[in-house]
Amino acid sequence: MRIDVLTLFPVMFEGVFGSSILGKARDKGIVSLNTVNFREYAHNKHNTVDDYPFGGGGGMVLKPEPIFAAVEALTATAERPPRIVLMCPQGEPFTQRKAEELSGEEHLVFVCGHYEGYDERIREHLITDELSIGDYVLTGGELPAMVVIDSIVRLLPGVLGNEQSAVTDSFGNGLLEYPHYTRPAQFREWGVPDMLLSGHHDHIAKWRREQSLLRTLRRRPDLLDAAELTPKEREWLAKLKANGEL
Amino acid sequence: MRIDVLTLFPVMFEGVFGSSILGKARDKGIVSLNTVNFREYAHNKHNTVDDYPFGGGGGMVLKPEPIFAAVEALTATAERPPRIVLMCPQGEPFTQRKAEELSGEEHLVFVCGHYEGYDERIREHLITDELSIGDYVLTGGELPAMVVIDSIVRLLPGVLGNEQSAVTDSFGNGLLEYPHYTRPAQFREWGVPDMLLSGHHDHIAKWRREQSLLRTLRRRPDLLDAAELTPKEREWLAKLKANGEL
Repeated sequence: MRIDVLTLFPVMFEGVFGSSILGKARDKGIVSLNTVNFREYAHNKHNTVDDYPFGGGGGMVLKPEPIFAAVEALTATAERPPRIVLMCPQGEPFTQRKAEELSGEEHLVFVCGHYEGYDERIREHLITDELSIGDYVLTGGELPAMVVIDSIVRLLPGVLGNEQSAVTDSFGNGLLEYPHYTRPAQFREWGVPDMLLSGHHDHIAKWRREQSLLRTLRRRPDLLDAAELTPKEREWLAKLKANGEL
Repeated sequence: MRIDVLTLFPVMFEGVFGSSILGKARDKGIVSLNTVNFREYAHNKHNTVDDYPFGGGGGMVLKPEPIFAAVEALTATAERPPRIVLMCPQGEPFTQRKAEELSGEEHLVFVCGHYEGYDERIREHLITDELSIGDYVLTGGELPAMVVIDSIVRLLPGVLGNEQSAVTDSFGNGLLEYPHYTRPAQFREWGVPDMLLSGHHDHIAKWRREQSLLRTLRRRPDLLDAAELTPKEREWLAKLKANGEL
């Protein structure tokens, strides 16, 4: 996979693209990660990439020309048109399903603005996907792009070792994870649930499933509707809820 | 404000903490941003920070001792106990309201795991807040911590200039932003809406409000319930919806 990122702050990506899973995926040749400073495509007097909004009001707006020119320079050499993803608060909420979809692409281009609006013609005539990672205000699209890229690259074949994928696979069932414990069995005054030291693997599996259901019910009941539960489990949760045992 | 981040990958933070708003806030002395590699607190034979889970199963679990020791080294010199924030998918969904709440603190400690579970005793006896930035799977807590830190630091007094805050303030009303346009008025075959060139400021304000309502209705109708709308606006939206004019 090839990933290009348009940004005015390429240095922000260095530590992240060079470390951990992204760095390893790059070293293995599974993904190429490139940043493009689109200021280099601003062919006007002062290399400006932004201007005042038509109609007045505060703030600045990113001009269409530099971003179109930067994307077109990338796509000129591409065999097939890439997906061009704009990171913005108005975008489609990013989900694991979207990460899976994008992980099937050969070439992705991310466009990151920085505390400014985008000229609407960029959205209408250049971008294929607008994504938002959540309903909070950030300084720019750089951190959101890193988040989306991390979630996509870890899904590419050969990137995660078996050990690493095992833990996160447990999200697959749509529930929050059960509690984990490791050595020491006694840390200060706090021990480990006896169940986990019992060696009864069936009982442990049942306890973990219950803990996972309970944690989801307490913290994120909104996830339960879409989760894969047995009728018996739904009944158990409804009973707990009715009895106020949360 | 003082922010400490516990991570096994401090290099990931360098580009982000040194650039843009975070770098400037740091240079101005408004925030101190420090990373602590908690492997330095693993006082066992091989400096291991993780171990196999009790009860079996795949994946590794972060041990309690190094993380407790690293946090306690930080709090030993602190005047008041800091908030200690764990980044994890099981956490409370992060929101702008939470960013505002945390921006009132003097000292925050972030704990980032990396494709591993946390020993439950860390959650129960050390952590004050568990946060998740969204329902997607990431390699570690580092990018989520950067997202949360960015959203908090930009709220601190003196960090954002007026120009920068103006654009993002428009989220304050709970709606998605209206379209922005800047020069050139004609870019390739695409112009700017005549309204924005009219000079009628009242009409422009009305058009922008309508565009903002329409965009929210089309893309994120879930936001409309909590948004501040006039009865007349709610009526207008209901009519559009009923007529299928979306």
